[in-house]
Amino acid sequence: MTKLEKYVKMVVNVGVNIQPGQKLMIRCPVDCAYFARMAMEEAYKAGAEDVMIQWMDEKSARINYLLAPDSNFGKDTQWEKERVKYLVDEGYNMLSVSASDPEILKGVDPERIQKNQKAGSLMMKPLMDKVSSSQVQWTIASVPTEAWARKVFSDASSVEKAMEMMWDAIYAASRVDDNDPVDNWNAHVANLQSKVEALMGHNFEYLRFKNALGTDFTMRLPQGHIWLACGEKAATGNVFIANIPTEEVFTTPHRTGTNGIVYATKPLVYMGDLIEDFWLKFVDGRVVESGAGRNRHLLEKLLTTHENADYLGEVALVPHDSPISQSGILWYNTLYDENASCHLALGRAYATTVQGTEGKSEEELNAMGVNQSLTHEDFMIGSADLEIIGVTYDGKEVPVFVNGNYAI
Amino acid sequence: MTKLEKYVKMVVNVGVNIQPGQKLMIRCPVDCAYFARMAMEEAYKAGAEDVMIQWMDEKSARINYLLAPDSNFGKDTQWEKERVKYLVDEGYNMLSVSASDPEILKGVDPERIQKNQKAGSLMMKPLMDKVSSSQVQWTIASVPTEAWARKVFSDASSVEKAMEMMWDAIYAASRVDDNDPVDNWNAHVANLQSKVEALMGHNFEYLRFKNALGTDFTMRLPQGHIWLACGEKAATGNVFIANIPTEEVFTTPHRTGTNGIVYATKPLVYMGDLIEDFWLKFVDGRVVESGAGRNRHLLEKLLTTHENADYLGEVALVPHDSPISQSGILWYNTLYDENASCHLALGRAYATTVQGTEGKSEEELNAMGVNQSLTHEDFMIGSADLEIIGVTYDGKEVPVFVNGNYAI
Repeated sequence: MTKLEKYVKMVVNVGVNIQPGQKLMIRCPVDCAYFARMAMEEAYKAGAEDVMIQWMDEKSARINYLLAPDSNFGKDTQWEKERVKYLVDEGYNMLSVSASDPEILKGVDPERIQKNQKAGSLMMKPLMDKVSSSQVQWTIASVPTEAWARKVFSDASSVEKAMEMMWDAIYAASRVDDNDPVDNWNAHVANLQSKVEALMGHNFEYLRFKNALGTDFTMRLPQGHIWLACGEKAATGNVFIANIPTEEVFTTPHRTGTNGIVYATKPLVYMGDLIEDFWLKFVDGRVVESGAGRNRHLLEKLLTTHENADYLGEVALVPHDSPISQSGILWYNTLYDENASCHLALGRAYATTVQGTEGKSEEELNAMGVNQSLTHEDFMIGSADLEIIGVTYDGKEVPVFVNGNYAI
Repeated sequence: MTKLEKYVKMVVNVGVNIQPGQKLMIRCPVDCAYFARMAMEEAYKAGAEDVMIQWMDEKSARINYLLAPDSNFGKDTQWEKERVKYLVDEGYNMLSVSASDPEILKGVDPERIQKNQKAGSLMMKPLMDKVSSSQVQWTIASVPTEAWARKVFSDASSVEKAMEMMWDAIYAASRVDDNDPVDNWNAHVANLQSKVEALMGHNFEYLRFKNALGTDFTMRLPQGHIWLACGEKAATGNVFIANIPTEEVFTTPHRTGTNGIVYATKPLVYMGDLIEDFWLKFVDGRVVESGAGRNRHLLEKLLTTHENADYLGEVALVPHDSPISQSGILWYNTLYDENASCHLALGRAYATTVQGTEGKSEEELNAMGVNQSLTHEDFMIGSADLEIIGVTYDGKEVPVFVNGNYAI
C-alpha cells in the first residue's frame, strides 16, 4: 500500500471514522479531485450509504472577486439554503480538504470577501452548528497543491520537488509511516488524553500567559469548562478526529474574562493574505486595541466582520517540542500552524467545551461565557519561552507550561 | 494569442455570445477546470453579470455507480430542484463542456444508470425546456481529456501526443485557425443558411432515404416544419451557436410519419458504452423492431427508458464531404460524430422546428407531430452513397442528397 493510500484510509477510517449506513459529504478543491475520489471509494468500502462531493475552486473564486460586478457579492440563494438543510436533515458527516494557496486572494477588495464570507457563514450556520457541537463526525485534512507547496518550500529546485517535500511533511505530521496508522493514532490519542486528565484534575479558575515577546495576560476559564483533545465522541456514538494532524488540548476562555496583551508568533492567513507581527489588547474579554506590522486593515476586518469576533472562543495548548513545531516549517495554513503552537481563537467557542450548554440559546451561551459568533479564527501565540501558570479556585499556582512545553 | 485562447474567446463570444448584463452557467468536468476558469474570465470581460460553474465528474460518478447501495439511485432532492428553478428564473445562459471518456461507465449496471438518468432528466426538465426552445443562449463545446484522446487516437505514441492531436482536430473542426474565428464563423453560418433557404423553398411533404447498407425509409415532415442551422436567435434577441462544431441543417420528422428501416453507420456511445452495428424498423413513426451487433440490451434501454424514446425527434443533414467527416476520425462523442454524418434522433423534438408551437402543451405538441420525451439521442446514418429524395405536396421529386452530399 502506498503512503497516499494509507493516508486516505486513515483520514476516512480514523479521522471521520465512517461507519456502515452513514452518509458522507466530501468538500474538496477540484485540483485535488483524485483525493476526493479515493476517499469516496474508501468510504463506500467502509459501508457508507451515500457519499457526495462538493467541489470547491478558489481559482475561479478569485476571478469572480476580481471581475464580477458589485451586485454579485453577499448574495444568498434559496437553493443553497436548501442544500444546507438537506445535509443537516440527512445527518451527513463531513470530510473537508484544506488545500489553499495562502495568497490566492491577494489584491482582492476585502469588502467583497467580507460580504461573501458573511453571507456564506449565515447560510452555512445550521450545518456549522451541527459540526461544532459534534452532532456528526467530521475531519479536516490537507492535500498539497502546487501554489501552496511553492509558498512553503520556496527553496525547492522545482515545483515537483516542492510537492514531494510537502507530501513527506504531511505524512510525517499525520503519523503515516511504516507502522499501522491506526496504532499510531491510538497511542497519540492516549497521550493527549493524559494531558486532558491532568488539566481537568486541577479545574483552574485562571491561566496566566507570559513570554519575552511581550505577551502578558490573564484568562478566566468558565465554570464547568472542559478540556478536550482529539478522539471526541460524536452524538452518533462514534469517535472521530476533527483535525488531521492534531496536537492540541483545548477549552474556551470565559468570554469576558481575558485581560492583558498578546503577541502573535506566526503570520495569520486571512482573506487570502497574511497578517503579520500583530498584537491584541484585551479588557474584560474584548479587544480594545490592536496593531500589525503588515495588513493591519485585514486585522480590523477580522475583528469587525461578525458580531463577537472581538472576543475569544478558544485557548489551545501545543508543546513547542511537538513534531510539527520541530519541523520548523511555516505552513501558512491554520490546520498545520495551529498544531505547531499554543493558540487562541477569536469568535465562536465550541459548546462542547463547557458543561450544561445543551439546548441553550445564543444569548444564554454568551451569558455563560461561551462566546457565540459566525466566525472562528485561530492565531498562534506559542514560543520557546512561553510560560503558562494555572491558578486554582483556592489560589494555588501550578506551572502548566515552562519554556514552551508541558510542565503539568 | 494562443489557439486555446482563441478557442475560448470564440466559444464564449460567438458560441453562447454572452452580452453585457447576462448571466452564464458553465457546466464543466473538474478535469478541465482551467477551461472553465478561462471561459469565466472571458464572459466577465464581455460584461456578464454573473458566471457560475457547475462542476461535473464522471470518475466519481463511476465509483458511485459501482460501490453505492441500491437505495442511492433514482433519487431527487429538493435542493437540486431549487437550483434548477433558480437557473430558470434568473435566465442563466448555458455553456456545457463535453469531455467524456466514451467508456467511463463500461461494466456499470444499466439499471442504475437508467434510474439516475430518469431522475436527472425529470429534475432538469424545466431548464432543458428553456434550452430546447431557445429561451436562452446555449453552447456545447469540447475539451480533450486523456481517456478520450487515448480512445480516439489509440495509435499515438504517448498520451501527450494523443492530447495534442485531439486539440489540433478540435481546433480544425471548430474553425480556429490563423484567421479571425468570428469571420470564419460568419462565412460558415451564411453557407448553412443557404441550404436552409433551399430546403424551406421546397416545403417537402416527405423525404426518402436509401443506401446500399440497407437503409430504406420514408419520413413525413410536419406541416409548417422549419429547417434550422446554427446561428439561431434566442428569445433574448441574441444569435448563438448551439453546438461547436456544427455542420448540420435539421428539422423534425412528424412523430407518426416514418416507415421503413434504417441502419446506423457509426457506433453510438450510450450509458458509457458503445452500441454498434444497429438498425431500427419504423411503422407509423414508432420503432417496432431493432437489432444490434453489440450491446443490443443497451439499445433496448434507450428505446424504453423514457416515454416516446421510440419515436423520432430530429432529422439532420450533413454532407459526407464536410471537413469533420473527411478527417476520418471516429470521435466516440455525439457532438463531433453527428457533425460528420446525416443523423436522426430518438426522443424529444426541438419545438423551434415547427411553426405555431409556442405555448402548446406536451399533448398538443405530440398531436402536431412534434415528439415530446425526456430524452434526445442522436444516431448516425450518413454514408458515401446515401440518397435523399424530397417529395413536395404536389408530388414533385427533388434530389436532396446524391452520393452522400447535397444535390439541392
